[in-house]
Amino acid sequence: MASEKDTTASQANSMWGGRFAAGPAEIMEQINASIDFDKILYAQDIQGSKAHCQMLMDQKIISGDDGAAILKGLDQVKGEIEAGNFTYDAKLEDIHMHVETRLKEIIGDAAGRLHTARSRNDQVATDFKLWVRDTMDQMDQALKMLQTALVTKAEQHADVILPGFTHLQSAQPVTFGHHMLAYFEMFTRDRDRLRDARGRLNECPLGAAALAGTSFPIDRTQTAEALNFRKPTANSLDSVSDRDFALEFLSVAAISATHVSRLAEEIVIWSSAQFNFVSLSDQFTTGSSIMPQKRNPDAAELCRAKAGRIIGALNSLLVVMKGLPLAYSKDMQEDKEATFDAARAYALVITAMSGMVDDMTVNAAAMKASTAAGFITATDLADWLVRVLDMPFRNAHHVTGSLVALAEKKGCDLDGLTLAEMQTVESRITDDVFSVLTVESSVASRVSYGGTAPSQVLAQVENARRRIE
Amino acid sequence: MASEKDTTASQANSMWGGRFAAGPAEIMEQINASIDFDKILYAQDIQGSKAHCQMLMDQKIISGDDGAAILKGLDQVKGEIEAGNFTYDAKLEDIHMHVETRLKEIIGDAAGRLHTARSRNDQVATDFKLWVRDTMDQMDQALKMLQTALVTKAEQHADVILPGFTHLQSAQPVTFGHHMLAYFEMFTRDRDRLRDARGRLNECPLGAAALAGTSFPIDRTQTAEALNFRKPTANSLDSVSDRDFALEFLSVAAISATHVSRLAEEIVIWSSAQFNFVSLSDQFTTGSSIMPQKRNPDAAELCRAKAGRIIGALNSLLVVMKGLPLAYSKDMQEDKEATFDAARAYALVITAMSGMVDDMTVNAAAMKASTAAGFITATDLADWLVRVLDMPFRNAHHVTGSLVALAEKKGCDLDGLTLAEMQTVESRITDDVFSVLTVESSVASRVSYGGTAPSQVLAQVENARRRIE
Amino acid sequence: MASEKDTTASQANSMWGGRFAAGPAEIMEQINASIDFDKILYAQDIQGSKAHCQMLMDQKIISGDDGAAILKGLDQVKGEIEAGNFTYDAKLEDIHMHVETRLKEIIGDAAGRLHTARSRNDQVATDFKLWVRDTMDQMDQALKMLQTALVTKAEQHADVILPGFTHLQSAQPVTFGHHMLAYFEMFTRDRDRLRDARGRLNECPLGAAALAGTSFPIDRTQTAEALNFRKPTANSLDSVSDRDFALEFLSVAAISATHVSRLAEEIVIWSSAQFNFVSLSDQFTTGSSIMPQKRNPDAAELCRAKAGRIIGALNSLLVVMKGLPLAYSKDMQEDKEATFDAARAYALVITAMSGMVDDMTVNAAAMKASTAAGFITATDLADWLVRVLDMPFRNAHHVTGSLVALAEKKGCDLDGLTLAEMQTVESRITDDVFSVLTVESSVASRVSYGGTAPSQVLAQVENARRRIE
Amino acid sequence: MASEKDTTASQANSMWGGRFAAGPAEIMEQINASIDFDKILYAQDIQGSKAHCQMLMDQKIISGDDGAAILKGLDQVKGEIEAGNFTYDAKLEDIHMHVETRLKEIIGDAAGRLHTARSRNDQVATDFKLWVRDTMDQMDQALKMLQTALVTKAEQHADVILPGFTHLQSAQPVTFGHHMLAYFEMFTRDRDRLRDARGRLNECPLGAAALAGTSFPIDRTQTAEALNFRKPTANSLDSVSDRDFALEFLSVAAISATHVSRLAEEIVIWSSAQFNFVSLSDQFTTGSSIMPQKRNPDAAELCRAKAGRIIGALNSLLVVMKGLPLAYSKDMQEDKEATFDAARAYALVITAMSGMVDDMTVNAAAMKASTAAGFITATDLADWLVRVLDMPFRNAHHVTGSLVALAEKKGCDLDGLTLAEMQTVESRITDDVFSVLTVESSVASRVSYGGTAPSQVLAQVENARRRIE
Repeated sequence: MASEKDTTASQANSMWGGRFAAGPAEIMEQINASIDFDKILYAQDIQGSKAHCQMLMDQKIISGDDGAAILKGLDQVKGEIEAGNFTYDAKLEDIHMHVETRLKEIIGDAAGRLHTARSRNDQVATDFKLWVRDTMDQMDQALKMLQTALVTKAEQHADVILPGFTHLQSAQPVTFGHHMLAYFEMFTRDRDRLRDARGRLNECPLGAAALAGTSFPIDRTQTAEALNFRKPTANSLDSVSDRDFALEFLSVAAISATHVSRLAEEIVIWSSAQFNFVSLSDQFTTGSSIMPQKRNPDAAELCRAKAGRIIGALNSLLVVMKGLPLAYSKDMQEDKEATFDAARAYALVITAMSGMVDDMTVNAAAMKASTAAGFITATDLADWLVRVLDMPFRNAHHVTGSLVALAEKKGCDLDGLTLAEMQTVESRITDDVFSVLTVESSVASRVSYGGTAPSQVLAQVENARRRIE
Repeated sequence: MASEKDTTASQANSMWGGRFAAGPAEIMEQINASIDFDKILYAQDIQGSKAHCQMLMDQKIISGDDGAAILKGLDQVKGEIEAGNFTYDAKLEDIHMHVETRLKEIIGDAAGRLHTARSRNDQVATDFKLWVRDTMDQMDQALKMLQTALVTKAEQHADVILPGFTHLQSAQPVTFGHHMLAYFEMFTRDRDRLRDARGRLNECPLGAAALAGTSFPIDRTQTAEALNFRKPTANSLDSVSDRDFALEFLSVAAISATHVSRLAEEIVIWSSAQFNFVSLSDQFTTGSSIMPQKRNPDAAELCRAKAGRIIGALNSLLVVMKGLPLAYSKDMQEDKEATFDAARAYALVITAMSGMVDDMTVNAAAMKASTAAGFITATDLADWLVRVLDMPFRNAHHVTGSLVALAEKKGCDLDGLTLAEMQTVESRITDDVFSVLTVESSVASRVSYGGTAPSQVLAQVENARRRIE
Repeated sequence: MASEKDTTASQANSMWGGRFAAGPAEIMEQINASIDFDKILYAQDIQGSKAHCQMLMDQKIISGDDGAAILKGLDQVKGEIEAGNFTYDAKLEDIHMHVETRLKEIIGDAAGRLHTARSRNDQVATDFKLWVRDTMDQMDQALKMLQTALVTKAEQHADVILPGFTHLQSAQPVTFGHHMLAYFEMFTRDRDRLRDARGRLNECPLGAAALAGTSFPIDRTQTAEALNFRKPTANSLDSVSDRDFALEFLSVAAISATHVSRLAEEIVIWSSAQFNFVSLSDQFTTGSSIMPQKRNPDAAELCRAKAGRIIGALNSLLVVMKGLPLAYSKDMQEDKEATFDAARAYALVITAMSGMVDDMTVNAAAMKASTAAGFITATDLADWLVRVLDMPFRNAHHVTGSLVALAEKKGCDLDGLTLAEMQTVESRITDDVFSVLTVESSVASRVSYGGTAPSQVLAQVENARRRIE
Repeated sequence: MASEKDTTASQANSMWGGRFAAGPAEIMEQINASIDFDKILYAQDIQGSKAHCQMLMDQKIISGDDGAAILKGLDQVKGEIEAGNFTYDAKLEDIHMHVETRLKEIIGDAAGRLHTARSRNDQVATDFKLWVRDTMDQMDQALKMLQTALVTKAEQHADVILPGFTHLQSAQPVTFGHHMLAYFEMFTRDRDRLRDARGRLNECPLGAAALAGTSFPIDRTQTAEALNFRKPTANSLDSVSDRDFALEFLSVAAISATHVSRLAEEIVIWSSAQFNFVSLSDQFTTGSSIMPQKRNPDAAELCRAKAGRIIGALNSLLVVMKGLPLAYSKDMQEDKEATFDAARAYALVITAMSGMVDDMTVNAAAMKASTAAGFITATDLADWLVRVLDMPFRNAHHVTGSLVALAEKKGCDLDGLTLAEMQTVESRITDDVFSVLTVESSVASRVSYGGTAPSQVLAQVENARRRIE
């Protein structure tokens, strides 16, 4: 075993090992090149370049012949990338240089005219905005899918009763449909946030050039329209320094991932043998390498955990942007990996959660049985005292406390007390009180707007279906 | 000195010392009581209670006499708090119990009817939303003040020329007005975000009760309207579990504080003797306890630093909310201090930054002198080659590089080269080229939409004034 | 109600309201003054000043008379502060100026000699290090108290059996003592980390002066020793720029708070009616304003939540320090509130958690009953197949899976299968197998070092008691 | 252009697109499989398995023949992986199953005996600890390289004088060697932290099995020793639940990255034309796509930015771990990508920063010239007043302030005042005062321990060389 001891350090972690001997050029290439991750932007880069080229032609800044060659060449480059016939080289640093270099190989010196009146700074801002906007649109669709899964489940189980918890203690009975709709509200706010963020992002930085604008007679409105932006950005310094759109995207994703994490936590707890409120199929659970009987809710746990990852990405980019002087600083290149990684994680959790909501079996009997503990209709009793005996709520709360204590002592639930026993605490109580002590009557009574009554839930389901569109 | 060594631990840090000996009751009080920080909510709490009381009266859930007594009593409590005649006691835990307890002292048992059909859960959600909404409104005013300061400065210095930087290296000349307007854009987006967040917050949770709604015939629309909410929330479980409004407020504040931190960094750099671009008066600088000559930009540094604090608050609340099961958990009590502290820090940085923008003296001569270094009009030269000689931009970039090398060797700026010297690099260059090599001609030429030309800046100033309102 | 609508904004949030009208002086005072929070450092400030004064006397830099007056005066100032007879004034900015100003009132111009050969920069670094060091010592004591509570509970319940979970699914039976000792290990690492951090902190910055050292013939070793530091810091620029000690303290606290949050989460889950593994007394639970029957584990929830707060504080200070040029920048003033707040929160959670561990009642019967579900001894069965039948583990895992499926179909646990039934799956199984299928035999068998067997637990308890000291 | 508008969303972001149509199996595979990132652990996995196998043989738990086959087979698997002849398949989830599956193909059923008395939970904890430990060792070497670069630079420039800054305002003259050594101190603390963290990590979790230990007669001390761990972990539940070692590694990296970010910020500022204190060669700078004259300090900016990334990774893992119940939860799988990514980023910044420190040219003349501004020897003057005229420091500070004001009015530096002019402020000043007003005399005088005097710097350089080892 002796030799074993020394092998690892020498072989593993080659990312460190090689570097010590690396010359400055290699180090610089490794820290500086972004092609490994920004190649994902190829479609947006070419889309932006085509819009820019067309505008340069229309404004007579470049000739129609050159322009046509560029447009055709760009399509060819895109085709090559999508066909997998494209060679990447870290020496060319980023996707922008890769595309332009290949374009030059195809069409010659005319390729050099494409960069007229623009800079890598406004180009990358445009590309990245386009990517984030596309991602927002996909994210909106994903959220819609999740909303639909929730509403469907809510409708199916509008009258299934389970304990409503606060502090994970039984509080009042609620319906499963109502619980699902609580998440519907959260994801609806997420979609709203996304729409607002998209609207704010939707100004085109192309034409800001390096930072000061340009002296060429460009038409920024044309490129903005061609790329489906609402209008061009109003300040060229801001255009190349701004990463608000990525920060806001990450904020929305972080808040939304927090919503997912809450449902995931509930699924983990509900799946425990002790709760047994829901069951996930084999499709969303995994086994154990040592314990043959396990059915682990791995997907739910990963959904919970990835909130941490997305929160970390938001935090990273805020830290990167803090205290940067204008205009572009290279620090801002760190924007992309954080955003790409968070978007990928977010896509995973939304789709996995949609799948789990669809997949899960609701164990209505276990839920109902679980309401037996914890004097769950105590509030209904207190409310009865207020409504029928006209007690102030605080007094009713006190009387109910005494009745709970009595039941606890007797070892029964509230409806296990006899009327006589109840009257020892409050003599005016009548037989009518028993009508409010079942969980069915409890949930049925809570018809206030947004309340847990099945009738309210069904009304809100209908409403929700409209709001999804 | 010997005895000195032992004194500190015994005397300082009493927050620890006492606690070790504390009984459970004291520990629980210390960790559980929130009155130290939530007393700030007194006005919102009473405002919400009055709206709730009026609705209970109108719905005949409580009598007119009781309701009138409650309304009058609540006004008295508010008066006592504002007059400083109110005693706080950690045993009463939070502001809600303080108000209700005092109300009972004043009007007796009728006070106990106020809590009919509501719970501390919907009450605190309502109070906190009202506070955040009020804060958002104040924040909007503060941002408007800062925008005004920036636009005023921009107009005054629309044609002051300074080096525009990327990577803190001279890139192209820009105008100071243009630079100020870049920040105007950032804070405009912040106000937009704030308006969207306010709209989303603006649904009233009152009437959600503990979590399930209520069986009393309440009118949630009435209370929502009375408190200026757009409508009642649609799901009672969500109503008491939701802290999105605080998270979104903190996101907006964090992004905005990042903007402030960037301007603060610039002020710190600009105030150095080496840059000397701006000077702050004694009002926004401080001296040194040891170095009599110092004038330190403390306010700017604190503005920069507080971004870290606000980012930390956002992060904290995201972490707190992550993975919480529905409905209310006590963890959510951590929402307030994070939000209050961040709001206070944010208020400070916006007002301090507004003050600094107003206060700072622009050293136009030093800015202009600083443009002499770094071949700052090289892009203008390259653009001339494209425009006049019809070179592809990439070739023009290459020729310009050779001319820069030539000037560097000669030890002069670009306009220090003779035409003959230039023609050794590119024979077609004519005398006309010198017309684009001054910083004045450079900025004047950049008239593309959003560009740095003084004419563009003045147009954008006018536009900005309209957008402020 | 109409007038109600407008009142809040005007009255609440006075932190904003007043500021808009505030002049620059007030804004500056509010953002710059630190006395509100740094007055907590008074004892350390005076302790440091006395050590400095004594050294100045010994080195003949100041006279014995002046030195004696200063020492006596400083004691008086300390007495006044501790007696509550001290007036604070934001105009004097910080605790250092408060002490010196009062000293001058007491002893006259000689007070001005105290600041010889030092600066506020090394003074504040020294004060803050002393405070953090004191806090670390208290924190170590608090952790020791928590360790003791855990070990005591572990010994008391060394053989209480509960389901051991992975993924919150029953995995294998474990003992409650073993579970408590898992947390003992975590807090032991925390104390180790703390000791290392304390050792690293323990170099004295006093004498670094503003940043460059001093030309006075000071003796830094003397002051270091007087203040119980191991030695003086080796570089004066670093001495005043360094906040590693606060960052490391916050790292240790954040990791430790994460440990607390895990136990808190378990207590919340264990306290649910569905698990019912432990009960907390009224001392660590609270009631509900609307539901009379509730017993909420608020203290545990707050312990869980405050991890978020402490993580946020660590994050804040890392963000503040990131990218600061040397030497002191005012940004670093943000170090204190983050550290003070995190220390206070940490103190609360450790003491509250110690209280809860002491307080909680272990419901051994419920724990045992809970092991009945989930085929919890399946691994023992697989291990038996390996040990007795010499199966490769993977094959044994497969056979066990089939037996679990058989039991699931029959609706019984593994020991509910007959030998004949088992032999339909694997014919070599003998009656001996039943000896490993009880939870008692399972836990008793796991005697590998660190395993869950009661005998191992008791051995580790003994070991733990030694390690606490 | 019309068709252009619609293409992007459909083609880009395939990570979303495909997923909507994906069945549960594909979603689960995507969210659950870790092979994409954990294959990096292959060497550690095989190293751990070999140690486990040898122990099983020595304890007679498996036969010598089976053991020998396993050991040989594992070596073959390792060889295949390192030769690139290994096929990965997401269906096999992780590196552990890949290795075991391939082993079975090579040696048959005996491969199934390797998993006796262990679980994936202790296996992955062991693998990951080995990887982090290897990384720590590499990181220590990298830091040593950086320390050496700093000390070398310090020695070369021990007497180069530049303005020492506080608040980026000239404070007192310091030496460049002294400034470099400030960073030496920071990275020395980082190495200390690393050593402590490594020591704490160095307990072996292997043998904890799933969570409860095992009934097989394993020898945990043997495996611990074979893998160079100090000892086995003391609690099996903790062993599989603990990720402190990753959190502590990330804490150390985050604090250290903050140090790097500070030096990076200084390099960016120093490289500006306005400061011009240092120059970086082409090897560590890049050009501009639009401005031919630019030499951008990209590597320094990326070093600054990556602190944000590493802080984000620390934050993420703290969030993931917060509130997780024991023992293993799948959330913990998120530990690896955060750690791997941060380690990679950290390796890059340390090596890049070492390269930049080596590479940078110190512009001593510009540094010296920069000390002319800002009355940088004012403290020396005040100290002279104290030392020679026996003034209390506070009075001397006041007199110096008046002299600074006089010089400011006259438009000269302090040594530009005549003796007569000085005497108008303080009549006792003598000609001797001019001896302390040069920057050379100033730095030479600061010989206090750790001070900036060249003699002190050279002494500390010698000391540093010893401390590096």
